[in-house]
Amino acid sequence: MEKKFEDRGLVIVYTGNGKGKTTAALGLCIRAVGYDEKVCIIQFIKGSWKYGELDGIKRLAPNVELYQKGLGFVGIIDDKLDKSEHIRAAREALEFAREKIESDKYDIVILDEINVAVGLELIKVEDVMGLIDCKPELTDLVLTGRNARQEIIERADLVTEMREIKHPYQKGIMAQRGIDF
Amino acid sequence: MEKKFEDRGLVIVYTGNGKGKTTAALGLCIRAVGYDEKVCIIQFIKGSWKYGELDGIKRLAPNVELYQKGLGFVGIIDDKLDKSEHIRAAREALEFAREKIESDKYDIVILDEINVAVGLELIKVEDVMGLIDCKPELTDLVLTGRNARQEIIERADLVTEMREIKHPYQKGIMAQRGIDF
Repeated sequence: MEKKFEDRGLVIVYTGNGKGKTTAALGLCIRAVGYDEKVCIIQFIKGSWKYGELDGIKRLAPNVELYQKGLGFVGIIDDKLDKSEHIRAAREALEFAREKIESDKYDIVILDEINVAVGLELIKVEDVMGLIDCKPELTDLVLTGRNARQEIIERADLVTEMREIKHPYQKGIMAQRGIDF
Repeated sequence: MEKKFEDRGLVIVYTGNGKGKTTAALGLCIRAVGYDEKVCIIQFIKGSWKYGELDGIKRLAPNVELYQKGLGFVGIIDDKLDKSEHIRAAREALEFAREKIESDKYDIVILDEINVAVGLELIKVEDVMGLIDCKPELTDLVLTGRNARQEIIERADLVTEMREIKHPYQKGIMAQRGIDF
C-alpha cells in the first residue's frame, strides 16, 4: 500500500543558476500565512535580499520572521572582510538556525542561500545535513541557493532546479527595482 | 555603449515541469509591496491556486489584487464542463487581462498559468503576444505555466525553467497543506 504522510514536513530545495529561488521561498510564505502558519527565514548570505523584500516581508509579520545573518557577498570587489569573518558569521547563522529549527515553533524554516554558503566553504555540507537531522517531524525545511550539493538533493523530498533560459543582462538591461531588488 | 533601461518593464516567464512557478510569481508580490507597487494577478486556470494562497494574498491588499478567471482544471476526471465553456472563460480572462494591462494602474501584471491555457488550446499564442504588445513601457508582465511556447520565450526578457529534479510523489508523500495548496 502506498504510504501517505499528509502532515509530514518536507525538505525542499530550490537550486540552479536561474532567477526565482529565493522568490519562490518568499512565495511559500504567502501560502503559509494564509493558513496562519509560522515561518522563520534565516539568510546566510547578506545582500541577496534587498529592501523591497525586507519591507514586503514586514507585511506578513508576525507570522513570518526574517533574520539576516550573513555579512554580505563574499569575495566580490567591495568585500573588505577576511574570509574568516564570513566563516564565523556563517557558523553563527548555522547555530542560530539549529536553535530556531529545534524550537519547534515554526511550520516552515527557510535557510536562504545556504547552498551558496556551502559552495563558498563557509560551512560544510555535513553541517547542513545536521540541520536536516534535527528537523521536527512536521517542520518544512526550505534550502535555497545555486549548486546544491548532491548529498542534500538525495536527502530532500522536493527539488526544483531553476534554470536560466534567458536573462535580461543578456539584452543589456540593468537590474529592475521591484523585480531584482 | 551598453544600453541601460533601469525603469523598463520586463516580460518574465516562469515555465518548466517543476514546482515553484506560481510560487515565484507570488514571491514577486512581496517584493513589489515592499516598494508600495501595485500588482494584478489574473488566474487563467482555476484550481491552480488554493486556499492558503488566496488567504495569504489578502494580507498584501490593497497593493495586490487577485482575479480568478478560469473554470477549474480542464479535461480531468471531475471536469464536467464542455471544452467550449473553458474556451469562453479563457477568452474572457484574456479580455480582462488586456483591460487591466492597458489601464496602466499596475506595476506588475501576473498572468498565472497562461502558458497552460495556450497548451490546452483555450487561447492562441497570438493572443498572448497581443497582450505583451499592449503592455505599457514600465509594466512588468509575468507569465507562468509549463510548456511556454517558443514565440513567448523569444519575446521575453527573463525566462526561468523550473525543472523537477525530485518530487515528493516519487516517495509516495501526498500533497502538503501550506506547501502545495
